[in-house]
Amino acid sequence: MVPIVCFVGKSNVGKTTFLEKLIPELTRRGYRVGTVKHDVHGFTMDREGKDTWRHAQAGAGTIAIASPARVASIRTIDREWPLEEVVSRYFWDEDIVIAEGYKRSHFPKIEVFRSELADVPLCDEKDNLIALVTDDAPDLRVPRFGFHQVSHVASFLEERYLKDRKRPRVLVQLDGKKLPMKDFVQDFVAGGVVGMLSQLRGWKKARQVRVTITMGDEA
Amino acid sequence: MVPIVCFVGKSNVGKTTFLEKLIPELTRRGYRVGTVKHDVHGFTMDREGKDTWRHAQAGAGTIAIASPARVASIRTIDREWPLEEVVSRYFWDEDIVIAEGYKRSHFPKIEVFRSELADVPLCDEKDNLIALVTDDAPDLRVPRFGFHQVSHVASFLEERYLKDRKRPRVLVQLDGKKLPMKDFVQDFVAGGVVGMLSQLRGWKKARQVRVTITMGDEA
Repeated sequence: MVPIVCFVGKSNVGKTTFLEKLIPELTRRGYRVGTVKHDVHGFTMDREGKDTWRHAQAGAGTIAIASPARVASIRTIDREWPLEEVVSRYFWDEDIVIAEGYKRSHFPKIEVFRSELADVPLCDEKDNLIALVTDDAPDLRVPRFGFHQVSHVASFLEERYLKDRKRPRVLVQLDGKKLPMKDFVQDFVAGGVVGMLSQLRGWKKARQVRVTITMGDEA
Repeated sequence: MVPIVCFVGKSNVGKTTFLEKLIPELTRRGYRVGTVKHDVHGFTMDREGKDTWRHAQAGAGTIAIASPARVASIRTIDREWPLEEVVSRYFWDEDIVIAEGYKRSHFPKIEVFRSELADVPLCDEKDNLIALVTDDAPDLRVPRFGFHQVSHVASFLEERYLKDRKRPRVLVQLDGKKLPMKDFVQDFVAGGVVGMLSQLRGWKKARQVRVTITMGDEA
């Protein structure tokens, strides 16, 4: 899967403002960046009375709208999706996905921390905290960057996640739940599946290969 | 692929109003309905100043927002996507997708037509017109339904597209695009993948098995 890094921190600490500088720095370096915003309270993307809103009100579980320049979709879900599901569904040609929020996920995190807003950061090394963007020097053994060190953060991410993306990453989901797999098992599954599929007429190299198997009722 | 039917007709003829009645009729019958709105002029789904809007302004090509009840995504594209691409990317468990617009696509079309707005319908049999919803009797050899015959239209779609729908057991997507496979090839792939995965620690029987492999850069 594409590398995912979560930017976490208290409300109004400046996460989005920092990302507004980091995203262009990464795109300037040639990387395709996607973002995910975690909104625990729910969001509105559509406006009352618009055709797509009316479709959704009428009971369409997924609606999409497509123009020559953009495509958007909204899906009603019956359980919260883990971040990896959001990413695997909607991001297929990005080099990195930056999430805002998801502090309880297992993905690597960079916390944006201001000493005036709290005494200690929300996360530490046990939460897979990999760096801090901060005006302070909290007692954590992770790299620290200042709020203006945008290019340093970009280099840190580049070095860590973007330079050496080689191993195929394998995600197996059984009724949506991830099957944990060690690296060598991932290699075994990726090799077996790609080896089989590459024999098929129509096979093409792709960055992402997804196989979905729906069992009959007797399975 | 999921069956796709386009509802076409002039602006303000009542397409969305008709769909607001048809969609609940289909969901009441147990079908999962998705919709696609074609917006040739461009649309706004996001609001200025929101975090997701700021991510997109900063250069994120794809942004997503996820809450416990809904997931949405907006993607910037550099060429208009054909309807089948929109559907294959964003609809994976619907029984039918209803598009509003796309009158130039090759998909089956139902035209909503009012004699007060035009002399003749926009489409005819050569455009894969399969039915009319109309207050008139235009000279076209396709089934005609009145504006209130919502359940008749639902039955027509059911008979034509939903009755014998064998859900494809195996869906292989390469960067989101479906790899067409004959039935016996599906059996071969399903058998191979499940055979391999069922050897793994943690394997459990599931109705849906999904494998997502993301290749390294040199793949």
